Amino acid sequence: MNIIDIINKTKRNRQLSDEEITWLVSEYTSGNIPDYQMSAWLMAVCLNGLTERETITLTIAMRDTGDILDLSGIGGITADKHSTGGVGDKTSLIIGPAAAACGIYVPKMSGRGLGHTGGTIDKLESISGYRTELPFDEFSEIVKKTGFSIISQSGNLCPADKKIYALRNATGTVDSIPLICASIMSKKLALNADCILLDVKYGSGAFMKSYDDACRLAGLMEKVGASAGKKCRALVTDMNAPLGKNIGNALEVREAIELLQNKSRGKLYDLCIEITANMLEMAGKGNLEECRAMAENAICSGRALDVLRRTIELHGGNPQVTEDISLLPRASYSYEIKAAADMKILSVNSEEIGMTSLILGAGRTEKDGRIDMSAGIVMNCECGDKIYKGETIMTLYSSVCSDFTEASHRALNSIEKILI
Amino acid sequence: MNIIDIINKTKRNRQLSDEEITWLVSEYTSGNIPDYQMSAWLMAVCLNGLTERETITLTIAMRDTGDILDLSGIGGITADKHSTGGVGDKTSLIIGPAAAACGIYVPKMSGRGLGHTGGTIDKLESISGYRTELPFDEFSEIVKKTGFSIISQSGNLCPADKKIYALRNATGTVDSIPLICASIMSKKLALNADCILLDVKYGSGAFMKSYDDACRLAGLMEKVGASAGKKCRALVTDMNAPLGKNIGNALEVREAIELLQNKSRGKLYDLCIEITANMLEMAGKGNLEECRAMAENAICSGRALDVLRRTIELHGGNPQVTEDISLLPRASYSYEIKAAADMKILSVNSEEIGMTSLILGAGRTEKDGRIDMSAGIVMNCECGDKIYKGETIMTLYSSVCSDFTEASHRALNSIEKILI
Repeated sequence: MNIIDIINKTKRNRQLSDEEITWLVSEYTSGNIPDYQMSAWLMAVCLNGLTERETITLTIAMRDTGDILDLSGIGGITADKHSTGGVGDKTSLIIGPAAAACGIYVPKMSGRGLGHTGGTIDKLESISGYRTELPFDEFSEIVKKTGFSIISQSGNLCPADKKIYALRNATGTVDSIPLICASIMSKKLALNADCILLDVKYGSGAFMKSYDDACRLAGLMEKVGASAGKKCRALVTDMNAPLGKNIGNALEVREAIELLQNKSRGKLYDLCIEITANMLEMAGKGNLEECRAMAENAICSGRALDVLRRTIELHGGNPQVTEDISLLPRASYSYEIKAAADMKILSVNSEEIGMTSLILGAGRTEKDGRIDMSAGIVMNCECGDKIYKGETIMTLYSSVCSDFTEASHRALNSIEKILI
Repeated sequence: MNIIDIINKTKRNRQLSDEEITWLVSEYTSGNIPDYQMSAWLMAVCLNGLTERETITLTIAMRDTGDILDLSGIGGITADKHSTGGVGDKTSLIIGPAAAACGIYVPKMSGRGLGHTGGTIDKLESISGYRTELPFDEFSEIVKKTGFSIISQSGNLCPADKKIYALRNATGTVDSIPLICASIMSKKLALNADCILLDVKYGSGAFMKSYDDACRLAGLMEKVGASAGKKCRALVTDMNAPLGKNIGNALEVREAIELLQNKSRGKLYDLCIEITANMLEMAGKGNLEECRAMAENAICSGRALDVLRRTIELHGGNPQVTEDISLLPRASYSYEIKAAADMKILSVNSEEIGMTSLILGAGRTEKDGRIDMSAGIVMNCECGDKIYKGETIMTLYSSVCSDFTEASHRALNSIEKILI
């Protein structure tokens, strides 16, 4: 087999054989194919695509470059959940505990964030003492005990994905549906849960800007999951506006806890119920209607909060945080953006809100950059709300930035309004 | 400026600014942009193309990474000639002397070959003593004295092209009309002759397989040349069958000398007259009809052969070779392929003939590989000829390969025939 032939085939829209794809992934991962040849192939994929069969083979080949976890020790049905990411997305901290409270097991590995805010792992580290890096046995033991654990991606899972993702990031080859699918699904298949629920976001704050692209990615991931013998379902959900009211690491943990404390409802709650219900239904806990009721009950009864409390404790974090959110990091500086006139909010651009939180220090612009856990935004409004002169539209928080000129300017730009 | 933005623009079919293209070429050449980013951009160009304006800017930017020759010391109108390559193409050895004999100056730099046979430089080195690497001043002096010189590409001419071409070769990004145009034209513009005649080949033995692609490349190169202030003309010529009867380094020098000795006529002669006439016409020597007559006269009178003789002498080669072709390297082994029945030749596949000459040792498969100067093929037929049982179809020559089984099999395969 020959890398130039493989590049030329994809360039000329001819299909690669399974052997060629497997060889390519394995040789690239082991360093026998240089980056400059791989990046040429990746660009050909971006522009010409891959067939469904090629994407399935690519995903399996990437999975097979590393370990595949054995979750059988957990002793029950396991379900994994993945969101393609967005602004203010703290659903994992709600759905995991809620599903676990309904009797399924949610072993989850997450990443750190690069962009608007941190990833789920960064968010969890805003809880004092919470250890995100655990050996597999301890992770598995926590899942067995509480039904839920999230740790940092670790060990030798999908080394091909790590290497290919870094190269895609550096070569303008990120936005390809087959490549995104293979990257996500190879890691999901290596984690090896019985059921996989995918939350594919579309809209201004999402990676997929259009609904159609999100549907294509969702359908492809379901097929890849099924072909690997998994129960796999993808929901396509709106990320035009931020999810929930809080954006920023500690602020998002606070909102998740408040929701599990029954202190808030709204779109975030509805989405969490829908995702949890789908996970339960896949796991055979009943039909979708029954599963929705189970999920609601898990939250309303406080059982989901209890799962989160016990999980935090087993991770070495301070469980008191689930009762007293003032234990979370608090910003040194804050700034209220007030309405200069009576107005109606027409839309909130989540990408702009994300960029504001980045300016405030909540995200990182480069790998291994520092995050201000306390930084972020609390929205006091959503689309359709009326706000009167002098009322607060949103509050900005930061401990690293005391001058809010740029951030408030950007934040105001994110809001489309009419005067009333 | 940012390489990822540039890659994304070309990927998304958006035009690059002149500043972006110039920055890209200069930063890549100086090593500030790594190969893996450049190859992703090159693949995007292969699949999405470049506009005419972008191609012109790319070519000029590549030219400007190195020296631009000052040919003013030659003291007359200079004309350069370039062929996109093919099987049996020894036209430079005929056209250069013929044009020089008509009073224009032909300073030419050529490359070594990678493929079927050597390049023009390899061919010239089959003449005992001929030095292909000369300092610019000596090269310029020879052109001034005889009107014609060919040396190996040397000095700091188009370092961008050297680097980009090597990368394209390794990443399946060779077959792109804008990239081929920029590669050829950047070198032509750096050589800096007043007139540029391009011979764009199409057909089985050429890089451009289709006539339409060859026309597109020809048109683009003419526009690039004109925009750089050159008189530039491109002819599109047939390379479905080998050019002339001899294929192989010394064998091609022999055929060129025989033609200049008035010992042969045919398609090779016709093409050389046409190209020479176009060069003369661009240089203002008369209209095309007059220039054709001048070119024919230069050959028939023996003046072109005389130019070649004096040029070889000034290069340190043995000028006697122009009178006695037996001084050229001769193969240790030969093999005549004879007709097994009466037949009519329908076509000769030049690509297959080229592969045969490679097997015989006339070309190189890797950079810096050794060439057998004596190896090659002499065709005794061309399309449309009738050959009778027992007559020789072609003769194979080699000094490195005494077993002609594979080569003769391949050679026979190159011929499409019907029995008569």
